[in-house]
Amino acid sequence: MSSRKNPVIDLSHSRYAKLQPAALSEVTLNDDFWQPRRVINRDKTIPAQYTQCATTGRIDNFRRASGKMQGDFQGIFFNDSDVYKWAEAASFSLATDPDSELDSLLDSVIQEIADAQQPDGYLNSYFMFEREKDRYSNLKDMHELYCAGHLVQAAVAHHRATGKTNFLSIACKLCDHFYNVFGPGKRAGTCGHEELEMALVELYRDTQNENYLALAELMMDARGKRPGIFQNSAYHQDHLPFTEQTDLVGHAVRHLYYCCGGADVALEKDSAGYVNALEALWKSLTKRRSYITGGAGSRYEGESFGKDYELPNDRAYTETCAAIASVMWNFRMLHLTGEARFADVMENTLYNAVLPGISLDGVQYFYENPLADRGEHRRQEWFGCACCPPNVARLLASLPGYFYSVAQDSVYIHLYATSSARLTVGNGTEFRLSQSANYPWDGVITLTIEQDTEVAITLRSRIPGWAGSAKIAVNGGEAETVPAGYAALTRVWKAGDTVQISLPMEVQILEGHPQILGNRGRAAIRRGALIYCVEAVDNSGVDTWDIALTSDTRLSPVLEPNLLNGIVVLKGEGALLDSSGWEGRLYRAYTPSGETTPYTLTAVPYYSWANREAGAMQVWLPMA
Amino acid sequence: MSSRKNPVIDLSHSRYAKLQPAALSEVTLNDDFWQPRRVINRDKTIPAQYTQCATTGRIDNFRRASGKMQGDFQGIFFNDSDVYKWAEAASFSLATDPDSELDSLLDSVIQEIADAQQPDGYLNSYFMFEREKDRYSNLKDMHELYCAGHLVQAAVAHHRATGKTNFLSIACKLCDHFYNVFGPGKRAGTCGHEELEMALVELYRDTQNENYLALAELMMDARGKRPGIFQNSAYHQDHLPFTEQTDLVGHAVRHLYYCCGGADVALEKDSAGYVNALEALWKSLTKRRSYITGGAGSRYEGESFGKDYELPNDRAYTETCAAIASVMWNFRMLHLTGEARFADVMENTLYNAVLPGISLDGVQYFYENPLADRGEHRRQEWFGCACCPPNVARLLASLPGYFYSVAQDSVYIHLYATSSARLTVGNGTEFRLSQSANYPWDGVITLTIEQDTEVAITLRSRIPGWAGSAKIAVNGGEAETVPAGYAALTRVWKAGDTVQISLPMEVQILEGHPQILGNRGRAAIRRGALIYCVEAVDNSGVDTWDIALTSDTRLSPVLEPNLLNGIVVLKGEGALLDSSGWEGRLYRAYTPSGETTPYTLTAVPYYSWANREAGAMQVWLPMA
Repeated sequence: MSSRKNPVIDLSHSRYAKLQPAALSEVTLNDDFWQPRRVINRDKTIPAQYTQCATTGRIDNFRRASGKMQGDFQGIFFNDSDVYKWAEAASFSLATDPDSELDSLLDSVIQEIADAQQPDGYLNSYFMFEREKDRYSNLKDMHELYCAGHLVQAAVAHHRATGKTNFLSIACKLCDHFYNVFGPGKRAGTCGHEELEMALVELYRDTQNENYLALAELMMDARGKRPGIFQNSAYHQDHLPFTEQTDLVGHAVRHLYYCCGGADVALEKDSAGYVNALEALWKSLTKRRSYITGGAGSRYEGESFGKDYELPNDRAYTETCAAIASVMWNFRMLHLTGEARFADVMENTLYNAVLPGISLDGVQYFYENPLADRGEHRRQEWFGCACCPPNVARLLASLPGYFYSVAQDSVYIHLYATSSARLTVGNGTEFRLSQSANYPWDGVITLTIEQDTEVAITLRSRIPGWAGSAKIAVNGGEAETVPAGYAALTRVWKAGDTVQISLPMEVQILEGHPQILGNRGRAAIRRGALIYCVEAVDNSGVDTWDIALTSDTRLSPVLEPNLLNGIVVLKGEGALLDSSGWEGRLYRAYTPSGETTPYTLTAVPYYSWANREAGAMQVWLPMA
Repeated sequence: MSSRKNPVIDLSHSRYAKLQPAALSEVTLNDDFWQPRRVINRDKTIPAQYTQCATTGRIDNFRRASGKMQGDFQGIFFNDSDVYKWAEAASFSLATDPDSELDSLLDSVIQEIADAQQPDGYLNSYFMFEREKDRYSNLKDMHELYCAGHLVQAAVAHHRATGKTNFLSIACKLCDHFYNVFGPGKRAGTCGHEELEMALVELYRDTQNENYLALAELMMDARGKRPGIFQNSAYHQDHLPFTEQTDLVGHAVRHLYYCCGGADVALEKDSAGYVNALEALWKSLTKRRSYITGGAGSRYEGESFGKDYELPNDRAYTETCAAIASVMWNFRMLHLTGEARFADVMENTLYNAVLPGISLDGVQYFYENPLADRGEHRRQEWFGCACCPPNVARLLASLPGYFYSVAQDSVYIHLYATSSARLTVGNGTEFRLSQSANYPWDGVITLTIEQDTEVAITLRSRIPGWAGSAKIAVNGGEAETVPAGYAALTRVWKAGDTVQISLPMEVQILEGHPQILGNRGRAAIRRGALIYCVEAVDNSGVDTWDIALTSDTRLSPVLEPNLLNGIVVLKGEGALLDSSGWEGRLYRAYTPSGETTPYTLTAVPYYSWANREAGAMQVWLPMA
């Protein structure tokens, strides 16, 4: 396949992109961490999700809309979107793993969707027949354009993966219809749940039809007017115009998708207002309103962001979809700026906030991701509101596309895993490299240049923020210490050249900002890219929430190849709080420091929790 | 007025009551703490709430229902209940403070209510005309019987306060109608929002009509069947039969009102199952699911109880109504058992969870009561859902009824304030006493016997649980140390006899159960009945959330007669956390103990916060 064919976002014509993402088909993961998960995603998750869509009426809803079936619409009014997200996951999967059976299944689903499209382009299986009169009558609540956004994303992914236009033409027809209804000079309208904005920009990128970009921009700017399109509701991000927003508020997935749309427009158009807002909102996310895992949206109420530093651990909502939205946004910011801080957030969120959302066997999901639990929170096979499962599937299917980018005379390496890449740099020069790593368990990464020709280029490998610095050695030479950020190595590269990056893998004990009330007197454990937790199953006979760290605690990595598909656990001498003496009391006279006893604790990666027997878990351990 | 005429709950015929509450008219408060609040309640709060009801269409809704007015129903479907709660507050006020103008106004409102009652007894201004067909079609959500419960409580209070039957007859006609619809052998039905249960028992007490008690019992027992009347929803307490419930769950006000109903039935009927459940639920409240203030219902989501120990401080929902419901329930438990622990919870909740719900000027209210805030949470004059304001008003108006009870040969003193009581003990013997106290600021209380005759009786004064013990001296004799609980003094009492109780008023530093995640490394301040907090206005130039206690902190009481209507503030040497060094970071490497600087902190009673300029507040201070 040709390069640039199927990137996660296609920036090949984007005027303000500093980087160009590699295409999925240019990257092959063959590591022991991500690739087995992608195989499960392909072989278990995507098929199981199709079955869920089929058995819950989600596909029948399209058949009903096209008149092939009778009966009521089934499920929630935005259920079309789950089918679209499944189709997007399947499309991404086809981009790296061609599969004629899946290809046919997908075409059959696309046909059902096509048959449900109305002559004028309208397409939403809920607003048919008895509800046809209600079309566009409640843009705020009914997710009509949100569903369309997922259709468009799926169609674009399908086009890029397969080259076929059967899905793309549906998307174009639908968006042409939107342009007629909501385009310049027409009705001001946008969706209460953002999503279509970024989808329209991608459709523009795929088709170069300027109408789609214009419509995306109109929808980006529809919010925050006086009076507001949604009564200036902050829940709907209608409290301020995008360019004046400084805090992430309201429904977390919506605001983060809105930021994706803003970044996508900023990649295409000269808009300092957008860029400034994106920077402010990113600071809101990373400096005040996200968990140490990268998870965002702390409130159950309204699935929303809390105030600054409002980050409760047991009631962390941290919807899996919000983490995925953050990865998508940070990936866009990375390409807009070329700055490593966005890749840092992307990596952290991917490992510690997206990955917990799916079980090791690939068929159960978390919607909420608490950082402390008493053993009651368990993954489920599906949800009535099933946004998260296919969102995880599409991200895993598209994951190779997040690893590498190119820029003028540079190759960027964002993420680490044993893999190979066949990139196009400069004016069509091929640049091939392979990565060898045992990431995230080990910090040594070896890059090997693979192409036969000599290529003068700067290789920019990300030294993660969590590492602080790293050692880099070229062709076995003396290692040099380089700070966090993209370590630039400019050279004429030829086959067999190697770069060895050694990231420090010492266990880190971290604390939270003093205004995070629930983190007072607590610390969290990081090793490399991973946040750890203690889980009851590894610490039997004690109350997991009594497990504490002390200032003397030194945790050591122990590879457990047979545990949880092979993980590095951390073991070391901590302490056990004495929670006796509390019989029947909720409050008592303060005792300066409770008795503790030494305790050898075992910690596991947070992403892996709740894959064994139910039991308590905690990320932020008390400091004894 | 005769005794036993207008108690808060009339247990004069209740077979299982250990205590009989004094009537409101038997008790006169003339202290400097509660009585000025009751005067404001009478002169400002109750009139202002009438104006709110009148200007928001709440009274017009009755006029519409009776055909006197045209137009749409105004406001929320359960707005009738606010008018009823206002009427109950006004009735209680008339019981202690006769006022012909208020009496007339109340009668005019009662007439509007009477005119809205339908020939069959039905009465709910929302379910009229176009919605008549929907009556009883959605008992789960539409609060139809909940509204009726508030009508009944108001009518009973009015009857007891004024002797008039114009309101009571409406209540009887309505409940006779309910008996015909939902009585034995008829449709099984109860309300999704409990309230009518306890009201029916009170109506039974007032009328001795057994049907009302039978209906209350039917409604108490309607929940928790298989299948459930409300789909076994825990939010609606339909997950288990009342007698099998062990945890407070779901909507807090509902569950606590349900417990009031259970206690009321248990006071009338031999039901070990109810008593056991009440005991288990009370343990759930006091040992696992309430704040140090007595506040209950920690979750914004569903205004509900959280799991055990789920008690976040900044996101404490702790609805004012839930605190009031807890006071009402504990008052009933106190009379069922005669045990001081219930009076302890009642006192704590009254001072620290109910009282914060109203501003010092009596016209602004908190719906939620956070224990930590950044200065954004402020009281409001009214709410769309205005349950809390008239709930506070009815409690303050009825407060004298919570102070004293009698039992066979005993007089119980539950609460302390300068006051006088004219009680009836034994077979009609008058027993009069006065209290002189500067409570809650000072711990010395002097009781003086006032009646002319000699009365052989046991005086039982509550030594609060927070005190641990107290010293008691009779007639100036040697003080004796007695433990917490009701201190029993048996004697032939005559005019001029005195009892001096000295409660220890040392400042207490308290800690929370280790599983309250947000209280780790924090402590709260209590002095006497009051929980304290730090508020920005008293601690200028620093971040209130940085104010810490140390193990050396000694706080001293300082009377400030001109501050916040006269309070005792606490001052002492604490510490100030150094939250510098966090610029732009949300997480960082753990630093064993941050630098602190000495800081002289000022704490004020939690109930008094947010009555001055807006600013941060915190109850649980970090321990430096």
